[in-house]
Amino acid sequence: MKTDLLYEGKAKRVYQAKDETGKLVLEYKNDATAFNGEKRGVFTGKGRLNNEISAYIFNVLNEQGIQTHFVERLSETEQLVHQTEIIPLEVVVRNVAAGSITRRLGLETDTSFTPALVELFYKDDDLGDPLINDEHALFLSDVTKSELQEIKDKALEINQQLIKLFESVNLKLVDFKLEFGRLASGCIVLSDEISPDTCRLWDKTTNENLDKDVFREGTGDLLEVYQKLFDRLEART
Amino acid sequence: MKTDLLYEGKAKRVYQAKDETGKLVLEYKNDATAFNGEKRGVFTGKGRLNNEISAYIFNVLNEQGIQTHFVERLSETEQLVHQTEIIPLEVVVRNVAAGSITRRLGLETDTSFTPALVELFYKDDDLGDPLINDEHALFLSDVTKSELQEIKDKALEINQQLIKLFESVNLKLVDFKLEFGRLASGCIVLSDEISPDTCRLWDKTTNENLDKDVFREGTGDLLEVYQKLFDRLEART
Repeated sequence: MKTDLLYEGKAKRVYQAKDETGKLVLEYKNDATAFNGEKRGVFTGKGRLNNEISAYIFNVLNEQGIQTHFVERLSETEQLVHQTEIIPLEVVVRNVAAGSITRRLGLETDTSFTPALVELFYKDDDLGDPLINDEHALFLSDVTKSELQEIKDKALEINQQLIKLFESVNLKLVDFKLEFGRLASGCIVLSDEISPDTCRLWDKTTNENLDKDVFREGTGDLLEVYQKLFDRLEART
Repeated sequence: MKTDLLYEGKAKRVYQAKDETGKLVLEYKNDATAFNGEKRGVFTGKGRLNNEISAYIFNVLNEQGIQTHFVERLSETEQLVHQTEIIPLEVVVRNVAAGSITRRLGLETDTSFTPALVELFYKDDDLGDPLINDEHALFLSDVTKSELQEIKDKALEINQQLIKLFESVNLKLVDFKLEFGRLASGCIVLSDEISPDTCRLWDKTTNENLDKDVFREGTGDLLEVYQKLFDRLEART
């Protein structure tokens, strides 16, 4: 199904899809990294779980009419997606404060943001993915002002869908990171993944983390937590 | 003319003005600090020069119809200003890249920004005055969305006036920092200072710095450079 390796990232490999023009195969790896690559680990089964979870979430979003790059899950660790030109922005949506923003702005963890806060980061590992504002984003990427607004609006719409999804499995969506890409047609669609690597999810009853914070903070077993999240989503259908 | 000391900052002291309700006296100090207070120095005469230069520039802006807190220069190191409630934002306007932005975004020094780039920083020494976006600014301050737009528009209008002013003395305005405050009436006006402490100014012929970078980088005599800038402005009138 896959041919040439095009790119290897921290959590995924990207291949050209065989006999499928304009499509890519994403292969989810078992690697976990945190703090811009300073903390690393390998967890057999993580790639499978993130592939399953992200496919599940992208299917839900596709059903809600949100355009994404996702086509289908191909195997335990692989999925087929539409090829997009990556827009070098990480779009973070925060419903409550946790992680870096609490240190950056001196906020208490769990401070509510109403409306949800949207942050942009410039995707550049060498620079440590710095926080940027809209004007930086227009300067550093090829998106237009109206496309940037569209991206932020989509991020907030996705937030509404994800809040509902996770609420249905007794989880509070704290924050998450999105990436967008441009199809050959020029359209901008949601790309990359949505998984416990890219979301903060707190159990609404126990406040337990079902996300990568257990690895970042060494407070739990990554595989166990990711499996628990997947089981809850699966039990939902 | 002045009574109680209300606040002492890195470069100025702020006093209640005597018998002048709603007015303050700013006293410019001889201290220079850089890198969020990590580098320090004292330069006898700096307070006088910044008081003169800032008064000169605020007078020019007032003449151009830009509302500021500035009333008049009172003495070598003091000026009278309208009392404002400080808005905890530093508004930086950049015409070309220099200093922190080059490291933060991996840009070459002297990269042009057209249109000029506006950045907001949250005024909080303990947090190191972090870069923020518009949504952070609305969350962290009491400005409304339209007031924030007004602040950014004013910053760009001031940029146009300052570019003209400095061009007339053969200087390129690289970037500068503004602060705004709210009068008792609720109006937002330009406050703080505009001086070689808060601007980057390059000689258009020699590229020589006439600003605090000579102190930051240890490349020149601060007093000599500030005096040179003041002499050029004085010679203009």
